[in-house]
Amino acid sequence: MGYSEIRYEVADRVATVTLDRPERMNAYTYTMRGELLAVFDEIDADDEVRAVVVTGAGRAFCAGADLQAGGDTFNKEKQGDMFAGEDVLEDGTPRDGGGTVALRIARCLKPVIGAFNGAAVGVGVTMTLPMDVRLASEKAKFGFVFARRGIVTEAASSWFLPRLVGIAQAMEWAATGRVFDAREALDGGLVSRVHAPDELLPAAYGLAREIADNTSAVSVAAIRRLMWSGLSSTTPWDAHANDSRLMAALGSSPDAAEGVTSFLEKRPASFPMRVSADLPTEVPDWPLR
Amino acid sequence: MGYSEIRYEVADRVATVTLDRPERMNAYTYTMRGELLAVFDEIDADDEVRAVVVTGAGRAFCAGADLQAGGDTFNKEKQGDMFAGEDVLEDGTPRDGGGTVALRIARCLKPVIGAFNGAAVGVGVTMTLPMDVRLASEKAKFGFVFARRGIVTEAASSWFLPRLVGIAQAMEWAATGRVFDAREALDGGLVSRVHAPDELLPAAYGLAREIADNTSAVSVAAIRRLMWSGLSSTTPWDAHANDSRLMAALGSSPDAAEGVTSFLEKRPASFPMRVSADLPTEVPDWPLR
Amino acid sequence: MGYSEIRYEVADRVATVTLDRPERMNAYTYTMRGELLAVFDEIDADDEVRAVVVTGAGRAFCAGADLQAGGDTFNKEKQGDMFAGEDVLEDGTPRDGGGTVALRIARCLKPVIGAFNGAAVGVGVTMTLPMDVRLASEKAKFGFVFARRGIVTEAASSWFLPRLVGIAQAMEWAATGRVFDAREALDGGLVSRVHAPDELLPAAYGLAREIADNTSAVSVAAIRRLMWSGLSSTTPWDAHANDSRLMAALGSSPDAAEGVTSFLEKRPASFPMRVSADLPTEVPDWPLR
Repeated sequence: MGYSEIRYEVADRVATVTLDRPERMNAYTYTMRGELLAVFDEIDADDEVRAVVVTGAGRAFCAGADLQAGGDTFNKEKQGDMFAGEDVLEDGTPRDGGGTVALRIARCLKPVIGAFNGAAVGVGVTMTLPMDVRLASEKAKFGFVFARRGIVTEAASSWFLPRLVGIAQAMEWAATGRVFDAREALDGGLVSRVHAPDELLPAAYGLAREIADNTSAVSVAAIRRLMWSGLSSTTPWDAHANDSRLMAALGSSPDAAEGVTSFLEKRPASFPMRVSADLPTEVPDWPLR
Repeated sequence: MGYSEIRYEVADRVATVTLDRPERMNAYTYTMRGELLAVFDEIDADDEVRAVVVTGAGRAFCAGADLQAGGDTFNKEKQGDMFAGEDVLEDGTPRDGGGTVALRIARCLKPVIGAFNGAAVGVGVTMTLPMDVRLASEKAKFGFVFARRGIVTEAASSWFLPRLVGIAQAMEWAATGRVFDAREALDGGLVSRVHAPDELLPAAYGLAREIADNTSAVSVAAIRRLMWSGLSSTTPWDAHANDSRLMAALGSSPDAAEGVTSFLEKRPASFPMRVSADLPTEVPDWPLR
Repeated sequence: MGYSEIRYEVADRVATVTLDRPERMNAYTYTMRGELLAVFDEIDADDEVRAVVVTGAGRAFCAGADLQAGGDTFNKEKQGDMFAGEDVLEDGTPRDGGGTVALRIARCLKPVIGAFNGAAVGVGVTMTLPMDVRLASEKAKFGFVFARRGIVTEAASSWFLPRLVGIAQAMEWAATGRVFDAREALDGGLVSRVHAPDELLPAAYGLAREIADNTSAVSVAAIRRLMWSGLSSTTPWDAHANDSRLMAALGSSPDAAEGVTSFLEKRPASFPMRVSADLPTEVPDWPLR
């Protein structure tokens, strides 16, 4: 499949998605939105992909919504082509585009690692909140600048951000709209680690490698869904019911036999099951994409 | 409007609420409760107020419930005037007073900054948990002392505190009832920063300034509601639906046009919309005050 | 009551539960599961117990599920005796054993302190997530190794772990299945403090002492239920209703009178109420054990 505003590569069982409009600091467009939705479908369907790294081409990660339309940028009536499509709520309201990307990433069956090479502002950072781990270059900058533009935090970030960094840090960043550096992002819990620019992608691939080389793809897919839906389910009892069904389903599976046997034999595991064919039906889904 | 146990001032678009019973270490009373409810109504209605700083007069922030009634302090039957009023649950149970303040602050339309100049104990700290940011003087002390008084953590703090500091830290403070210093509060995530005593209020006003000088009042009000209700809504889909409606409502608004245009023109924004008149009906509310 | 795979002692109002299969690194079995359920019933019923310390005999805390059955370890059909019993979901699915322990600990009426003397892997760590505080020896190691065994994170850990350490840290540990040391556990928020091996149990007992010597047992039991159910209830209004009922119930109680009076008289409190007899009916429960 061809993409025009992102690049997609798979090597050694790790996919790389690169936001690729370096001349516009990888600013987000309706086209990019559609390509991100499509590429995560491609990722989920490809058993060769065990983990995903998302980064930006050039010096930015993503500068946020492309503001070429000026004051009409966020006016859905005047920007029909940016917000059109079948993506509407039940009441006909156009769905927030950043949210469609964020929720798609949240339900991805592979772990997603954000590698912030440079500025990530507005939707450029909010759409990354459902990634599993965020790593930053020392040159990265971040900004939840929505209040400075007269709009609101989007991409379901009012749900994700307080759960990632706590409500006090979330409100401080969102109410000031401040742009802040990698150090503040690390201290605040938005990113897990900060690296020298040259060491960012190696670190991201190292983490992806650790997943791909050691674990069952089906286990990781099931765990990812359990964790993210666990963050939203209301009671631990729901989690327990999911666990019970999945332990019953996977406990007798070839991957479980291989996982324990390889451990006891002190050798690397070779898991036979595939996400595309063998994911138990008991794995919980998200409410809607 | 006149207050007797708090002071209220507005200067340069920032409101200051001062708990003002220094001879009693600003101990909380039923009168103070009512004045706090009233002052937040006043704050919400006044478009001149863009952010709120709450602090204490004298050397304490708030020593907790006034214990002048001794062993009968928390006995609602014997302390009728402290707990009376129309504030009852559906089943007739008198509503916990600290909770009425906490839930009122949670739904405030302006960001609220707690500036802890000294001791904040019992309801003196729990009622501040729905503030957006807490800053502490090096002289501040904190205590969730309820278990040492034979009562329970109140002011909905069993909901707020684990979300602010994690359940392990929340339980350690609540189960021991220990009084702890500003450093432990910072390490545990209860406060965002610790300042020298002379630098506390300047830091609080600096943060309020950053909000007032750079952002749309309507955006900030909408974001504050999104964030706090997002912390309680059950699914990211709910947040997405809210986002979509608010992006549709605000995307074509004068504030959004000014926000983007001023950014592109590299000049300060001058947002025309007012919270009192222009807040979109799509902004989510809390279940009850 | 006699136990074969754990030891249980009560001294000076603090209970100690020791996982006691040192020759198998205290690996978890179906027998151990049953004994843990039983001992927490015993703990809840004994007013002499004000706090609980859980640790491991020998050099490990708990090495996870005993893998003596090899590749069939998690196969419920072949391991009937490990997973049988009345513990099934409504649809007949056998309940995940680790989850039965975790949910039992979550609803315990006494604070529970985990003292990690050594390795805690798989269910050996997940079943401890509903403990209130985790303290670690410098020699402790941890691993959410499920994805390396072809199964899923269990013991309702998809619910507990993201709430304890954040979803990014939870996913990194769960997706890699990595074994990590006490320092990484501390940095990630899984444990509250790390101690020299000789200082671990003294620190745990010191914390238990702080609770037992200063607080009302009934207050602490009620607060523990409020906090843990508050972490799962959907709105702060639920917490407020619980608070209001419990403040009404306890505000006029002997413990509240003693708590305030002793404080004003600057003497240690001597709380008369007992958890077994005096716990208010308004204390919220968990959905199911």
